[in-house]
Amino acid sequence: MDQDISKKPTIRVGIIGAAGYTGIELLKILLNHPKVIVEVITSRSEHGNFVSDIYPNFRGLTGLIFSKFEESNFNKCDVVFFATPHGIAMNYASELLENNIKIIDLSADFRFKDINIFEKYYGIKHNCPNLLQYSEYGLVELKRDVLSTSRIIGNPGCYPTTVLLGLAPLFEKKHSLIDAGTLIADCKSAVSGSGRRMENSLLFCEISDNVRSYGLPSHRHHPEIITQLKEISNQNINLTFVPHLVPMIRGMFSTIYARILPQSINFDFQGLFEERYSKDQFVDVMPFGSFPETRSVRSSNNLQIALHRSKESKDVLVIFVAQDNLIKGAVGQAIQNMNLMFSFPESTGLNYCPGFLP
Amino acid sequence: MDQDISKKPTIRVGIIGAAGYTGIELLKILLNHPKVIVEVITSRSEHGNFVSDIYPNFRGLTGLIFSKFEESNFNKCDVVFFATPHGIAMNYASELLENNIKIIDLSADFRFKDINIFEKYYGIKHNCPNLLQYSEYGLVELKRDVLSTSRIIGNPGCYPTTVLLGLAPLFEKKHSLIDAGTLIADCKSAVSGSGRRMENSLLFCEISDNVRSYGLPSHRHHPEIITQLKEISNQNINLTFVPHLVPMIRGMFSTIYARILPQSINFDFQGLFEERYSKDQFVDVMPFGSFPETRSVRSSNNLQIALHRSKESKDVLVIFVAQDNLIKGAVGQAIQNMNLMFSFPESTGLNYCPGFLP
Amino acid sequence: MDQDISKKPTIRVGIIGAAGYTGIELLKILLNHPKVIVEVITSRSEHGNFVSDIYPNFRGLTGLIFSKFEESNFNKCDVVFFATPHGIAMNYASELLENNIKIIDLSADFRFKDINIFEKYYGIKHNCPNLLQYSEYGLVELKRDVLSTSRIIGNPGCYPTTVLLGLAPLFEKKHSLIDAGTLIADCKSAVSGSGRRMENSLLFCEISDNVRSYGLPSHRHHPEIITQLKEISNQNINLTFVPHLVPMIRGMFSTIYARILPQSINFDFQGLFEERYSKDQFVDVMPFGSFPETRSVRSSNNLQIALHRSKESKDVLVIFVAQDNLIKGAVGQAIQNMNLMFSFPESTGLNYCPGFLP
Amino acid sequence: MDQDISKKPTIRVGIIGAAGYTGIELLKILLNHPKVIVEVITSRSEHGNFVSDIYPNFRGLTGLIFSKFEESNFNKCDVVFFATPHGIAMNYASELLENNIKIIDLSADFRFKDINIFEKYYGIKHNCPNLLQYSEYGLVELKRDVLSTSRIIGNPGCYPTTVLLGLAPLFEKKHSLIDAGTLIADCKSAVSGSGRRMENSLLFCEISDNVRSYGLPSHRHHPEIITQLKEISNQNINLTFVPHLVPMIRGMFSTIYARILPQSINFDFQGLFEERYSKDQFVDVMPFGSFPETRSVRSSNNLQIALHRSKESKDVLVIFVAQDNLIKGAVGQAIQNMNLMFSFPESTGLNYCPGFLP
Repeated sequence: MDQDISKKPTIRVGIIGAAGYTGIELLKILLNHPKVIVEVITSRSEHGNFVSDIYPNFRGLTGLIFSKFEESNFNKCDVVFFATPHGIAMNYASELLENNIKIIDLSADFRFKDINIFEKYYGIKHNCPNLLQYSEYGLVELKRDVLSTSRIIGNPGCYPTTVLLGLAPLFEKKHSLIDAGTLIADCKSAVSGSGRRMENSLLFCEISDNVRSYGLPSHRHHPEIITQLKEISNQNINLTFVPHLVPMIRGMFSTIYARILPQSINFDFQGLFEERYSKDQFVDVMPFGSFPETRSVRSSNNLQIALHRSKESKDVLVIFVAQDNLIKGAVGQAIQNMNLMFSFPESTGLNYCPGFLP
Repeated sequence: MDQDISKKPTIRVGIIGAAGYTGIELLKILLNHPKVIVEVITSRSEHGNFVSDIYPNFRGLTGLIFSKFEESNFNKCDVVFFATPHGIAMNYASELLENNIKIIDLSADFRFKDINIFEKYYGIKHNCPNLLQYSEYGLVELKRDVLSTSRIIGNPGCYPTTVLLGLAPLFEKKHSLIDAGTLIADCKSAVSGSGRRMENSLLFCEISDNVRSYGLPSHRHHPEIITQLKEISNQNINLTFVPHLVPMIRGMFSTIYARILPQSINFDFQGLFEERYSKDQFVDVMPFGSFPETRSVRSSNNLQIALHRSKESKDVLVIFVAQDNLIKGAVGQAIQNMNLMFSFPESTGLNYCPGFLP
Repeated sequence: MDQDISKKPTIRVGIIGAAGYTGIELLKILLNHPKVIVEVITSRSEHGNFVSDIYPNFRGLTGLIFSKFEESNFNKCDVVFFATPHGIAMNYASELLENNIKIIDLSADFRFKDINIFEKYYGIKHNCPNLLQYSEYGLVELKRDVLSTSRIIGNPGCYPTTVLLGLAPLFEKKHSLIDAGTLIADCKSAVSGSGRRMENSLLFCEISDNVRSYGLPSHRHHPEIITQLKEISNQNINLTFVPHLVPMIRGMFSTIYARILPQSINFDFQGLFEERYSKDQFVDVMPFGSFPETRSVRSSNNLQIALHRSKESKDVLVIFVAQDNLIKGAVGQAIQNMNLMFSFPESTGLNYCPGFLP
Repeated sequence: MDQDISKKPTIRVGIIGAAGYTGIELLKILLNHPKVIVEVITSRSEHGNFVSDIYPNFRGLTGLIFSKFEESNFNKCDVVFFATPHGIAMNYASELLENNIKIIDLSADFRFKDINIFEKYYGIKHNCPNLLQYSEYGLVELKRDVLSTSRIIGNPGCYPTTVLLGLAPLFEKKHSLIDAGTLIADCKSAVSGSGRRMENSLLFCEISDNVRSYGLPSHRHHPEIITQLKEISNQNINLTFVPHLVPMIRGMFSTIYARILPQSINFDFQGLFEERYSKDQFVDVMPFGSFPETRSVRSSNNLQIALHRSKESKDVLVIFVAQDNLIKGAVGQAIQNMNLMFSFPESTGLNYCPGFLP
């Protein structure tokens, strides 16, 4: 802890929807954050209960009680996190902003400036388009500058985090590196990304020792990726995105196939990536030809990238991206955003070491 | 069981390398095959032991003893399976053929007619190129006709089985359907495909809750796929093939991305696949837009294929292929070949039903 | 297949509740049974659907459609299986018996002759106590003789199957072997035993890499075990039974601790067990000191038992029992009962070999 | 962080055998410990390599290099941890002590004051019995007072930690509570407890979806438990201890069965346990009748205990104990010991919160 931070005032935080997989993970990290007091946590299903009675991992570590949203008082909060389904945050954003409370929304409500895209893909009418002028898409490594002064942050989806960080360096500066019309992202996700939902297909017996795909003909994360890539590249982007579910609790592994344009066949992609992320503590560009594993970043905010070229298909750049879907892909990134918003060092509360074993 | 088979004579079978994962799986199915007597099984590490002492799943079901290869007598055998590392079968093939014993080799020794490719990718000198005239690549659905009279069968690798069956219909008849220069196969395999090898990376603690990739810049199954695809299509093929390891015991899921040529954008690919495999009992073309799961074919010789189109990338055909890597990807296919060689109905001993739960 | 069976007429079978984990597993085995035609299968949730649309493992293997119970006709059936929750079978048993249809109930409705015990532990009023005279507890290895002529079979619970087969030999003949007042059964079960139920605690993310216990202060399988042990032994029995849930799809491992009475400290327990089960094809008494594993009996009707003595506590007999909870612990045993009822060889449709790998 | 600790000098630490599962886990926690500088880490197999090259979870977090033990200099170290096989630490203890370096040995070399027991159970001659006067058995909750001044600590085994903390309160003060002659401990362990060893039986394919037992007729942890229980209770102890392996990476769940003596049948065991551990931060006595789960303490130094009584066997106290086998059962406990030795608050570096999801 450096001097800066010790002089900074502690902030007070609320979590809406704190009893789901992301909510509870967020709570865990915030309880260890040196500049945060968790003031209020709400849950529709668990209100009235001690956190530690429902989630015994917290026994002895917090006396917090889940409250009902309608009966909760956020006035003391400096920032509120929404770990709720899509379409909830937008209903309360206005009131919170009026009370000078910042918002970090882990749902999709504030991920799109263009509400047509949101409404088409999420099937929900957006009821506060006027607030979108105060919101930013919270992918720190792409938008660090604007995020620090943002009042609302639309925290990125887990898949887009990997695909965007895997592709951004290729499109930020030049149009001559990669064919933007033939991109492919084949993504493998742990099951926790589906949340604590009651579906047969998420039962242990139907996930274990099994692989399946989903998300075709269209997945909601597709327009999120495209929107950002277009903004970065000023080009049309054609991306085929196919998500898969593998028998893991945590972790996401995205394999991206990018066709190199003829004039760039000898370009130093490794150098480009290393340079691009040299200031980003949580993005680790591994040596060329490395094989990342999701366990190496498990339970941490780190994301590892490795580049490869196939001997037989020399015009294809293969990009591997590994992250913990719940941390860098969700709550860790949300806290990274919070740190920026309150001028804490970006890694505050996030700089612990992942284990070698899951 | 139809009348034909009851009149056919029973055959006698040997298994070389019967104590590995594929060997023991082969033994299990052959013990239940109505026209097979398992005559001799060899193992370098377990010779002298009852199978049922080393593998207690066989207790009460067989009195077979592993023997030392050098001390084994194959004279009574009609066919011998090699479930050995690459480079073994080629040493003994000549002697077996002279004794009129057929060979089904689950290693790579007889998968290539062009020994240069074999020697380059496997780093072993091929010592019986003269026998390649008697051998065939044993992918039944592609080469059924020639396999019935073959004396040596090079049983396909697990990855090539999925990729070839997923791509063959697209290249067999026309050159106008798919761009042969931009194919991508992203494959997810269970761990049993790596065999019973002593490596840290195969330990439970290092596989469970983890995903990783391997096989770049070049994997041995790549030339195997290319060789067959070229033969089918009479075209040059550019395929990027990336294998991944997921925490499963059994199963393989391959996601293939094929770019549709402009003139075929409205072609009926579903009809093509259904027609192509209408006579193949073990290849199931699911309705368009289905999501196969590896558990649906687990422990069976079935392979399921489903076609998809992405809403946002309409020029890409996505092909999902699911199989059990040990059965259709190895020993089941080997028995399918054996049935052909001895004029048994192709599904004899293989037509049991997979479970819903793994 | 021996001559006897080929001359026997095929029977017609119905399954009530065929879409749950046990129902669908039962269907899988019955479809392979050489003397069975599956006539009707019912499901509250899936009626109107092809089995193969809901469970794609059956694609190409059956054209059966789930029907609504109320609209199903069982008149052609020789036997009906209930794979339903407790309290269903008893409502329909009378009508089925009147139509001369036999019943195998996988729920608890017909496991107890004493309805007081049933009503106390299951909280359901028994509405056909008069039919209990026609019913038998279906643990074949204990009651083979009476089962063949029974009209209703109460198929045993999964835990009781292991504990009863592990303890029966010790209490059948003498009172001098084991202290009946200090028995302990510590049982570890796979998750499929909990069925396809929608509970947070059965989600992949909450089962994987986790162990927990349940069933105290009292579990429904306790009185089932005690009732049978009392009948066998004519003694009072004091048994502490603690079930645990481990991250497996299939399998059950019970560790039983039995205190040896001083006069029997040198008794040949191994000989007793071997002799006792010498005629029981599905009960395998392994050599003294063996370590069974659940994978060795996975997906089969086999149950393996091994006896041990601890060096440091010489008065304790440790009994390990391993089975597949869904097969020997449920549907395999039910088919074993069906075979007895219709004078088929006991193992018909059940004598396939388990794999070495799960 | 309280004031005390900020004034205390930082200590320098060495780890012998740092590349195994426990060594690497120890390193991870020590790198986050605010009063520790990791000075030297040795490995026979990995010397010369950067930690972060072999274990990429450490990338960006440490520049440490594994060194060869023989070439390592421990002179700057205040304490050295041995994460080595049994029989190593004893060879170097004398020299380290002479250099005023404290020792925490995670192997068994210093767990026994009676070298006869050690030599009998470990089959190794103890070559520094004279040093046992400086050593203590490092179960903090039992021996906190003597540990702070100890020069050598024999860090407890994982199984003994659970069984001793589960039983100690029952035997510390009175002889009238529990029958010391009929104790049973049925323990379920994750696989990481077996270390990074090359054995078929530890491969993913042979652990996943499987349960097995081992450790009979005698396991090395048995005399360790007995020695301590005798010391606590001044009684003879008869304990049957059976370890089991379940498909988990981390976690240990011990189920202990203790027969209550007639005069204590109404004793308040819950009160006894709560009182006993009221000062022990890492031992959590849950409310009576709770069901602990290993995931609730995963990756933390916490151990949870819950007491139960069976309705049907009222004379049995069932004690559930859950811990992370690698942390409280090994390296966390070792650091707890280190903190005591150097007068840091006991929880320094260890008080992070476990996750709800593994």
